[in-house]
Amino acid sequence: MFSGAQISLYPMTSNFVPVIMDAVKALDPHRDHLRIETDDLSTLLVGPPETLFEAMHDLFVTAARSGEHVVLHGTVSRGCPGEPDAEICKPSINMGERKPTSERISAAQAVIDAIPESKQHVSAQFSYYPLGENKEYMTEIYAAIDFIKNSGVFGRSKNFCTKLEGDSAKVFGTLGQTFLSFAPEMAHVTLDITVSANSPSTKKQ
Amino acid sequence: MFSGAQISLYPMTSNFVPVIMDAVKALDPHRDHLRIETDDLSTLLVGPPETLFEAMHDLFVTAARSGEHVVLHGTVSRGCPGEPDAEICKPSINMGERKPTSERISAAQAVIDAIPESKQHVSAQFSYYPLGENKEYMTEIYAAIDFIKNSGVFGRSKNFCTKLEGDSAKVFGTLGQTFLSFAPEMAHVTLDITVSANSPSTKKQ
Repeated sequence: MFSGAQISLYPMTSNFVPVIMDAVKALDPHRDHLRIETDDLSTLLVGPPETLFEAMHDLFVTAARSGEHVVLHGTVSRGCPGEPDAEICKPSINMGERKPTSERISAAQAVIDAIPESKQHVSAQFSYYPLGENKEYMTEIYAAIDFIKNSGVFGRSKNFCTKLEGDSAKVFGTLGQTFLSFAPEMAHVTLDITVSANSPSTKKQ
Repeated sequence: MFSGAQISLYPMTSNFVPVIMDAVKALDPHRDHLRIETDDLSTLLVGPPETLFEAMHDLFVTAARSGEHVVLHGTVSRGCPGEPDAEICKPSINMGERKPTSERISAAQAVIDAIPESKQHVSAQFSYYPLGENKEYMTEIYAAIDFIKNSGVFGRSKNFCTKLEGDSAKVFGTLGQTFLSFAPEMAHVTLDITVSANSPSTKKQ
């Protein structure tokens, strides 16, 4: 499997460079498990799916604690047929034989329930894309939506995406489980995620 | 067909609210052709594909001319089976019978060549997702990449996305043609786009 993410952090402040630089230090504990490359648009993380979501969460929470309005965008991908298998991407969990949808939903929920809260509130939205020759792609999308609706962080359905709201640890946990728990192990799956904290739009509401 | 976009504008300045408000005025000439709804994460545009890209371009160029580092993110979608056909989304062009890939590439390039430059330089990256029961989905992705590589704004291939650089009018034109010219007329296609101007990272290079 090849898995990774292109991520970008947008602090809505004239001091955006130090906010980004401080947040990037939060990736340090994960560096042994990730390949990291940066250009002017985004930073590539290559590594196991569970580490990708932990690293994105640590980066984002650090930036949000600056108090500035910050947004993280990520394009997360696994199983792209254009990419080689990579040892660094091996998941620590067994993705092997896919169980029925209801069992996968219960197992994913148990993982999220066990994650301690960060006490950082966030809004998020994501689009889930299971790609390729899979006739069941809308079934897997609807299963993922069922899971999300009962996850405790469901906000609302929007056109082209689903909105989440709640504690950042639960939101990133839910995104990670959505990425891992639906579509076959070898499928090409991408998740487009946007996470926002400290928006003046939410403060006004 | 149902087509639309969820777009977000991120100005990296403490004055982000006025930069966004000024840029939103650039949508005014398009309002008769679009349905527009905003929340704290993004603005939904629903309308014909060619208007979506013109409106996103006008919004982004206005924001970029503030001189601030600004980024636009958009999730652009057509043909989502979860959405009803909508009269407002009807393309002005005939998407009907799909011609061979080489003819579609030539026609798309002719459209881009005819677009006048804006004189605003941008960097961009996009991911192209033709979804559903289409066994040819990687063929259409590779055709789109061939088109992009010769479009005059190709930057480089990245993991999970393709980078573009050049005049904003040509970059948005190329994104619009990628969205329209590949995958069948009734296919479910999404395009994830990120466009950046005035980044200090590019100024250093």
